[in-house]
Amino acid sequence: MVRPLARMFIEVALDAREIIDLDAAQCHYLINVMRLGQGDSLLIFNGRQGEWNAVIEATAKKGCKIRVASQSRSQKLEMDLWLVFAPVKKTGTNIIVEKATELGVSRLCPVFTENTKTRRINHERLRAQAVETAEQCRRLTVPDIDQACPLNEVLTKWPADRTLLMADESGGGMPITQLTSKQRLVGTSPAPMHGVLIGPEGGFTDAEREQLRRLKFVTLIDLGPRILRAETAALSALACWQALIGDWYRPFYR
Amino acid sequence: MVRPLARMFIEVALDAREIIDLDAAQCHYLINVMRLGQGDSLLIFNGRQGEWNAVIEATAKKGCKIRVASQSRSQKLEMDLWLVFAPVKKTGTNIIVEKATELGVSRLCPVFTENTKTRRINHERLRAQAVETAEQCRRLTVPDIDQACPLNEVLTKWPADRTLLMADESGGGMPITQLTSKQRLVGTSPAPMHGVLIGPEGGFTDAEREQLRRLKFVTLIDLGPRILRAETAALSALACWQALIGDWYRPFYR
Repeated sequence: MVRPLARMFIEVALDAREIIDLDAAQCHYLINVMRLGQGDSLLIFNGRQGEWNAVIEATAKKGCKIRVASQSRSQKLEMDLWLVFAPVKKTGTNIIVEKATELGVSRLCPVFTENTKTRRINHERLRAQAVETAEQCRRLTVPDIDQACPLNEVLTKWPADRTLLMADESGGGMPITQLTSKQRLVGTSPAPMHGVLIGPEGGFTDAEREQLRRLKFVTLIDLGPRILRAETAALSALACWQALIGDWYRPFYR
Repeated sequence: MVRPLARMFIEVALDAREIIDLDAAQCHYLINVMRLGQGDSLLIFNGRQGEWNAVIEATAKKGCKIRVASQSRSQKLEMDLWLVFAPVKKTGTNIIVEKATELGVSRLCPVFTENTKTRRINHERLRAQAVETAEQCRRLTVPDIDQACPLNEVLTKWPADRTLLMADESGGGMPITQLTSKQRLVGTSPAPMHGVLIGPEGGFTDAEREQLRRLKFVTLIDLGPRILRAETAALSALACWQALIGDWYRPFYR
């Protein structure tokens, strides 16, 4: 089994022959985790300028330098899909951030609902998880992660032209496969702007559900007869979206 | 938030007015975890006779008795979908078993491939995980879990009329949405018998992939441009299958 090249997300601008100083954590990852040394190759990306080959130029205890070589992939248009989710107990939230990153979500909005028991969100940890997953799954971007806020705040600011797909565990949503015909997609037309909304363990309250149903931008979807955990519902909806109208369906996004 | 009734999988035959003796573990779950006592209600199912209401008749330290009352749901035909997967590190395998149960898989086949690093499978633990998940997601059955064996053994015994959908991370598979037209589904025709095959971390070897591609019952599917972890690939394929041709699509299975 050929080991794939190490991939690293870097904030700074990238340009051929540029020398970049890495911090201690990045250096530790390359030298101690990936066991690379001077002269070894890696791939780097910054979310804006595609992916580049780079070479480790010099290593030291508290940092190292890499030299940017040639661009390996140019930046591509990515799907514009948001995920609004109520945080669940630690592992569940981790799974949601990891899988949403793998499934090409562009923005994650953690929200507090009436039945949300998990109130503490470590934004830094979620961001680190998203970066690590983006590195591993070969994404060219890292999804944005909002600061957690009450559901109402997200709904008030929600753009009118972005459909919010709400997984309604009380039934009555449309089968998610109807999304395609409803969106009247034509070959290479840009994918619509969507969001997916997943409730907390214990579900939405009746009042919340009623409020959501009345919003014009909300479309109820159905995820089958079994009760899905929050993270299963989230990533089932995301996978179906990518397969039906996202970049599993539109090869020109590859 | 109304707490849903406790649900318990029970092996024995169920009939109205029957008294069933529970073992210490089942009793501990009802009394100490769910905090139920004499006279409290629960739901029980055995995978063959639907779901029944039951009442706790008597409690003691090392066991308790429940009385079967009336049937709450009759047994229904369920989807016939297998998942063949290479076990991944502990959490990954747990996630696969849990999510596959939520997503209605009828049989789980853990297999060893060339690149499978995880060689020890605790069959009892996987079974317990499937039972607990089935209880929570309101399934009427618990998926069968085979003893782990080499991939070749599963392929040799594979039924010729069951399509094995192989997620091919090397590209070239068909978009999973093409499953519907390919299967020429008519309204209420029974869902086709399928299996989903997911490789290990590190993927299949070239030889394995070549062998799989030559098998008549294997159909290659594509799960998009990002590299998915084994468990993400598994449950993405399962969710899409249920949405496209399974019981998210066929309301008469509800």
